[in-house]
Amino acid sequence: MEPGSDLAPIEVFPVPGIPEVSKGADLGGLILAGLRRGRLGLEEGDVVVVKQKAVSKSEGRVVRLSEVVPGRRAKRLAKEEGKDARVVELILEESVRVVRSGHGVIITETKHGFVCANSGVDQSNVGEGLAALLPVDPDASARRIRAALEKSTGKTLAVIVTDTFGRPWRRGQTDVAIGCSGISPLVRYKGKKDRFGYELRVTEPAVVDEIAGAAELAVGKLDGVPVAVVRGAKYAPGESGIGSIIMSRKRDLFR
Amino acid sequence: MEPGSDLAPIEVFPVPGIPEVSKGADLGGLILAGLRRGRLGLEEGDVVVVKQKAVSKSEGRVVRLSEVVPGRRAKRLAKEEGKDARVVELILEESVRVVRSGHGVIITETKHGFVCANSGVDQSNVGEGLAALLPVDPDASARRIRAALEKSTGKTLAVIVTDTFGRPWRRGQTDVAIGCSGISPLVRYKGKKDRFGYELRVTEPAVVDEIAGAAELAVGKLDGVPVAVVRGAKYAPGESGIGSIIMSRKRDLFR
Repeated sequence: MEPGSDLAPIEVFPVPGIPEVSKGADLGGLILAGLRRGRLGLEEGDVVVVKQKAVSKSEGRVVRLSEVVPGRRAKRLAKEEGKDARVVELILEESVRVVRSGHGVIITETKHGFVCANSGVDQSNVGEGLAALLPVDPDASARRIRAALEKSTGKTLAVIVTDTFGRPWRRGQTDVAIGCSGISPLVRYKGKKDRFGYELRVTEPAVVDEIAGAAELAVGKLDGVPVAVVRGAKYAPGESGIGSIIMSRKRDLFR
Repeated sequence: MEPGSDLAPIEVFPVPGIPEVSKGADLGGLILAGLRRGRLGLEEGDVVVVKQKAVSKSEGRVVRLSEVVPGRRAKRLAKEEGKDARVVELILEESVRVVRSGHGVIITETKHGFVCANSGVDQSNVGEGLAALLPVDPDASARRIRAALEKSTGKTLAVIVTDTFGRPWRRGQTDVAIGCSGISPLVRYKGKKDRFGYELRVTEPAVVDEIAGAAELAVGKLDGVPVAVVRGAKYAPGESGIGSIIMSRKRDLFR
């Protein structure tokens, strides 16, 4: 199949050889070096998918738990859910409200508007006694990485920052987009008609989340590979950012 | 990168040339013919992803709305949500309960245990005056297709049947697995440790859903291409079926 045709395949490449990311690291530069090491090039329209943990580390969003003083509310909730009160303090600081808690899980709405476990605060893959927080503005993170990659390659690209979220009713997690640049989060079929003339009223594939999940398939969890390139996905360029995928309170039946 | 290594790419191919599926159609045979037409072969470990609509049509799970007599409850709910009472009757018949309704959407729990809009009842891409229902046993559908493909190719394969689901808190939809064969829905990292020795306690990527989303990226919505092949994804073979991804009522904070 010729590339660019509707029947062109999608390809997802892990980007190898990216070292442990430290505060202030030039993530764009590290990704370019990883691509060179893997003898991979970027092509027009490629989507570069970067795991939140690498972004958070480069932006210094890592907290030493010994420096966190839990408040009364954190202590109470920590006791209820069998968690470290300092971690719960961070979860509460990163949230605007607790949506549900139980079974050792605290589901919050973050300042960005994401509803997820533990406000995205995560102790895995950061080192003992440390916890990573989500980037303050993941769209801005994506924009910075995209600018660096586009400047160096001369290609028009998209960047998605992802995190691993659970979901109600289904076990397990999938990677989803928490920030993006150069790509509209949703594909809009609204108003288009199917082959039988039936208007596709509500179908808006969340292409950033499907790309995030596809990238996770390629990089796995334990490999220390925080970046993948997704090639051949159909998407609309755009700069509306991840906010445009967050459901308004008014329309949300589960808030 | 050599195939099979952790850094091998994922590839997603749409399978072209599958005609409109009718009741009793041999889906396995149609997929094999489509693969031949696209000059595509199946390889060991490939995951064949089939959209629910094609499966439902082949299994005769299409209902003529003129033959549906809505009951009192369906009529009332149809009025509240501005929907066709005959469609609402089907939604209720396919469900064990209504989870939420509002804004013209009826979220139900289906007999399979899925929580989704309209019990999966769908009027798009089926023809005027018709509605498609989910397969009665989508794991069995996946098993049948897998058996046909394995018999013909001599390869060990996996098959996932997918549908397009919305989700709370985020706009847009992603394709997710509603049935599977030859693949365990979740990858279990439980008990494994990260590079820093931190135990990855809760990470179980829902690989069937990430594969479903990746397939959707390749086939889109309007192309009349209901099948894709996902190659290179790491998964555990297994026959636990989709039931093993449904969260138990006991653990579910949103039921």
